[in-house]
Amino acid sequence: MKGRPVVALAGGVGAARFLAGLARVLLPERIVVIGNTGDDAEIHGLHISPDLDTVTYTLAGLADPQRGWGIQRDTFHALDALRRLGAETWFQLGDCDLGTHLYRTERLRQGAALSRVTAEIATALGVRVTLLPMSEGRVRTRIGTPRGELEFQTYFVKRRARDKVTGIRFEGAEQAAPAAGVLEAIREAQAIIVCPSNPFISMGPILAIPGIRVALQQRRAAVAAISPIIAGRALKGPAAAMMRSMKLKPAAAEVARLYEDFVGIFVLDNADRKQAGAVQALGMRPVVTNTIMRGVRERQALARTVVRELGLTA
Amino acid sequence: MKGRPVVALAGGVGAARFLAGLARVLLPERIVVIGNTGDDAEIHGLHISPDLDTVTYTLAGLADPQRGWGIQRDTFHALDALRRLGAETWFQLGDCDLGTHLYRTERLRQGAALSRVTAEIATALGVRVTLLPMSEGRVRTRIGTPRGELEFQTYFVKRRARDKVTGIRFEGAEQAAPAAGVLEAIREAQAIIVCPSNPFISMGPILAIPGIRVALQQRRAAVAAISPIIAGRALKGPAAAMMRSMKLKPAAAEVARLYEDFVGIFVLDNADRKQAGAVQALGMRPVVTNTIMRGVRERQALARTVVRELGLTA
Repeated sequence: MKGRPVVALAGGVGAARFLAGLARVLLPERIVVIGNTGDDAEIHGLHISPDLDTVTYTLAGLADPQRGWGIQRDTFHALDALRRLGAETWFQLGDCDLGTHLYRTERLRQGAALSRVTAEIATALGVRVTLLPMSEGRVRTRIGTPRGELEFQTYFVKRRARDKVTGIRFEGAEQAAPAAGVLEAIREAQAIIVCPSNPFISMGPILAIPGIRVALQQRRAAVAAISPIIAGRALKGPAAAMMRSMKLKPAAAEVARLYEDFVGIFVLDNADRKQAGAVQALGMRPVVTNTIMRGVRERQALARTVVRELGLTA
Repeated sequence: MKGRPVVALAGGVGAARFLAGLARVLLPERIVVIGNTGDDAEIHGLHISPDLDTVTYTLAGLADPQRGWGIQRDTFHALDALRRLGAETWFQLGDCDLGTHLYRTERLRQGAALSRVTAEIATALGVRVTLLPMSEGRVRTRIGTPRGELEFQTYFVKRRARDKVTGIRFEGAEQAAPAAGVLEAIREAQAIIVCPSNPFISMGPILAIPGIRVALQQRRAAVAAISPIIAGRALKGPAAAMMRSMKLKPAAAEVARLYEDFVGIFVLDNADRKQAGAVQALGMRPVVTNTIMRGVRERQALARTVVRELGLTA
């Protein structure tokens, strides 16, 4: 008996770290992760799925603990060779990591669905959590900036997320459908967790797939979100700066407001305990705890708190 | 003044080694190599051109001196990762080498011609010889065996060329055209050298491209071939075994007979001096010398002999 599924909506690093803790607190087989693919990109002709890979590598224990992307102790010989040939190499691709992208690209070209390929990679690397891409369809996050609209990785990696963000668009989202199993998992889940990920570029694409947000709204009481903003800052990535660009105050309670319609429980950091009232005013139950995951122990502690607050049995 | 071009028809390792000698005896800018692409393959979704790469890497001083393929001191981390994901990994692809294949594949997909991409790679690696693929078209060598027809790399690498060869077919050759510059180079060349390569699988595809063999026939007196068979054996690869499968005696003079219509000068090894008469009987001028290239000195010595016999000024 593995119990009813527990669903997690996930972006990249923050989500992956939380999920690594969750998979030690709950039976991994019970966890269904719905991953963002809005930041997928074609680089050197390869299909890269950065968020899916970050989750997979982290759960497989292969992630680089410092960088938050790629595989630990990876080498960069292929990239060096590409650079020598004059190719643009601002997107760092390690050699082991390339194996994943080569595999994925070839399988997709053979006609396999992204969900199938994602499962193959996860299984081969010993990941027992089910990882679903949000959609099989092609969704691409585009970032509006004063210098024009940028492809997501150009904004995020090449230009290091330093442009003012004037708008965000999820190209293809309206035509995309949730991947098989996504809506079913949300419907059947005992609980749903919105991982501590960027609300715009990690959760935004997932929520933009027709049907997903509505399905979550119907489960509001069973949905818990963990704030990616702590004391006005994002631990990683441009969430706080994005909020400022969008004339939002970078605060946990502001994130809560973005999730108001589909989140029933909102987890904020001890540093933000004063915002608990504002969260409560949104009709959410605030949970105040330590949300900074410096190491394995803190990941598990946070996961345990969330599991308890959701009334799950570990 | 670099002088009129000297053209070389090239397969893989044997050709590459000879060309490395030739490029030290003649001005590299004067040498135009026409390379075999019949053994090109799509592996892990990448366009691999093994013979073009062997020539490029050897002329760039990057080739692995032992293996005859790939880049020296290369690592195989991407391949290990692919293996872990369950991909077939019998085709060895080093990480640096992968950089080349990624670059080529992406450029071809962008619409660049193979000749253009080949030149870009060679130039970036400091190769001053002009390297032309025999054709921009898709030509694929297929090997007939008692277990059915095999894709070339399956026969050659996966099954280590151990099947009896019952036939060879160059799929697409009849519809292919010589790459721009190939026929012109043959026409304008001061001399043409058929490198010591397998007559069936290295020279066969080049000669099967409509127009090339005829162009060579018109230059017969200026064409010299170096025997890839020495004392009944090929130094590398399956040439001798293939000749036996085809009921041909594996002998230098038999190779000469295969080239009878377009070669005027035939270079055989000292070990085969007794076959000089048979070569002469074909209307060719035999040149007997050491053709075994163990090191740089021997490559250059052989190149110097060929250059002298062709009446070229070094």
